[in-house]
Amino acid sequence: MKTHALAQTQFLSAQDVATLVAKMGLAAALDRMADYIYADFLRWTDFDKCARVASHSAEGVIELMPVADAKTYAFKYVNGHPKNHLVGLPTVMAFGVLADVDTGVPELLSELTLTTALRTAAMSAVAARTLARPSSKRMALIGNGAQSEFQALAFHYLLGIEEIRLFDTDRAATDKLIANLQHTTLRLIPCASIAEAVRGADIVTTVTADKTNAAILTPELIEPGMHINGVGGDCPGKTELHPGVLLGASVFVEYEPQTRIEGDLQHLPADFAVTELWQVLRGKAPGRTTESQVTVFDSVGFALEDYSALRFVRDVAKELGLGQLLSLIPALPNPKDLFSLVRPALSAASPRQANADAVPLEELVHAA
Amino acid sequence: MKTHALAQTQFLSAQDVATLVAKMGLAAALDRMADYIYADFLRWTDFDKCARVASHSAEGVIELMPVADAKTYAFKYVNGHPKNHLVGLPTVMAFGVLADVDTGVPELLSELTLTTALRTAAMSAVAARTLARPSSKRMALIGNGAQSEFQALAFHYLLGIEEIRLFDTDRAATDKLIANLQHTTLRLIPCASIAEAVRGADIVTTVTADKTNAAILTPELIEPGMHINGVGGDCPGKTELHPGVLLGASVFVEYEPQTRIEGDLQHLPADFAVTELWQVLRGKAPGRTTESQVTVFDSVGFALEDYSALRFVRDVAKELGLGQLLSLIPALPNPKDLFSLVRPALSAASPRQANADAVPLEELVHAA
Repeated sequence: MKTHALAQTQFLSAQDVATLVAKMGLAAALDRMADYIYADFLRWTDFDKCARVASHSAEGVIELMPVADAKTYAFKYVNGHPKNHLVGLPTVMAFGVLADVDTGVPELLSELTLTTALRTAAMSAVAARTLARPSSKRMALIGNGAQSEFQALAFHYLLGIEEIRLFDTDRAATDKLIANLQHTTLRLIPCASIAEAVRGADIVTTVTADKTNAAILTPELIEPGMHINGVGGDCPGKTELHPGVLLGASVFVEYEPQTRIEGDLQHLPADFAVTELWQVLRGKAPGRTTESQVTVFDSVGFALEDYSALRFVRDVAKELGLGQLLSLIPALPNPKDLFSLVRPALSAASPRQANADAVPLEELVHAA
Repeated sequence: MKTHALAQTQFLSAQDVATLVAKMGLAAALDRMADYIYADFLRWTDFDKCARVASHSAEGVIELMPVADAKTYAFKYVNGHPKNHLVGLPTVMAFGVLADVDTGVPELLSELTLTTALRTAAMSAVAARTLARPSSKRMALIGNGAQSEFQALAFHYLLGIEEIRLFDTDRAATDKLIANLQHTTLRLIPCASIAEAVRGADIVTTVTADKTNAAILTPELIEPGMHINGVGGDCPGKTELHPGVLLGASVFVEYEPQTRIEGDLQHLPADFAVTELWQVLRGKAPGRTTESQVTVFDSVGFALEDYSALRFVRDVAKELGLGQLLSLIPALPNPKDLFSLVRPALSAASPRQANADAVPLEELVHAA
């Protein structure tokens, strides 16, 4: 009987994933994550897709992001609360699950706070490899918060970016980034303004956290041939790019129905043409076609990337022997006999005790 | 600094909830669960509600059920796979999360397989207390699978049902139910047919698992004054009641937009009038008005009931000191410095190693 094995869930904590990355190295982790995302985007049409389900409140948003193919179901829970740093918490926290489509068993539960930063950076790199000019060496990085180092390293390792020009309204964030990446060969240049950071850049990455309709990049800052990697405009009312920047560019998205709601695209007419990235990766649509073309990847984060990320941590954790088993689903000798779990409790209280206080019965607890 | 405390998630395993029920007793557990559901249904208008998000496959369905008020967000993951018993797994498995709306922190992760059976039975009892005749003593229970004992006991403890007439196409399921409930004062009578079980019953509960459009109850079986507690018709293509049964009855539902899609209601015209139960509980709409009226609770299971169930297990587990802390969200000394989790990994691989095999570096692992 394989009941017990089937009903167990593999759990990866935040520390497990940190250990996983430490063991394989950040460069290899980002590279392999990008491979997983690329492979799944090539299978785009195999997936049952929907826009994520968001619950908005005054302080932020909580979202569920499900996706499935014929074999595996995945979902991510993720929040976005820009003021969280005031109480010592990350702006974005996440976890996710891989489940078996044939039985519904949740096979993996993993932290995704750290993993989301890795997957978002890897996704940006996958897009930029096909949309940025191959000769790109210099990037502007606007927003130097929790995700910024991951973006910097993904472009360094996977695209060969050598110089990054930094800007954040909080200079302490920029200093933290520089300190964190001091042992790399990246040239990191703090700038006094967005304009200074963007000037002469091959790629501009925006990854800011304010939940407002900002216009961090305006049309006069954009130079011919730039690739804009817009990461921080990712929910209704939260944008980073002036509409004029999109109007003057070729715009690429993950999943069009979701990006129309959440992306920088939200302020443009519904008939403004965009291209889904998977079509470029599959060779069904052109990516960059000229040196002078301005390209925008209006990235909001799509459930399929988390499916890839969960596959990645599951596979690597297995290779490295990380994680532990969690009893999230009961193991039942007879699956039709769920009641067997509480049978010892039946004689613990008669109907007349239904409204009385709980009576701790140690022998029942130990029998249960 | 309270970072660490804030970022921790309370975890309740299937065994923890079984222990919780054993400690307080099943009667008290069902009674208190019903109190929680009732209290939350009275606050119906405080909640941000949506129909659940379902992913259907050949073998079953996987669903996410989110709901939130201004303070607390809840969601449940639940599957329905009728053939799971063939591989030793329950048909329905579930887990859920309570999160803080102001920060997005997942404060509780709990098993909900066992808990769902308790909450579904308690929900049925809450509905029947206002819809069934107060003199009800005899129930028919069609479908004697994993949820049946919980339904039997909820009606026994919370409504005073004394006799239950049982039918299942699998006689072994009925025998299991009788064995499980042998120590109660319930009179349990196995019947050879649905008609025999239903005849003379005050309440008819249907809780079958087949994912088909069945007509377990047909109009000629229905007697004046019956209350029908329809639990098993709960997703598109899965019904238990002949449309004629609904047409001849007053029909009550949890959340109308969801029940129109998933309930026995799915085969009726969109303008067939139904009443949401919360309106009856709040005194805004009539429930049963005559002795001879036939009432139907077309129950599909709504996210708010899981919100109540999660509140219930959280509160009782705290009182009883059950559960453990889980590191689902990383604790960061500086919340803007997510990179600190993987900083030790930075020097583990240079860009040139990005495609090389992972190099286990024990000292880095221990530092991480």
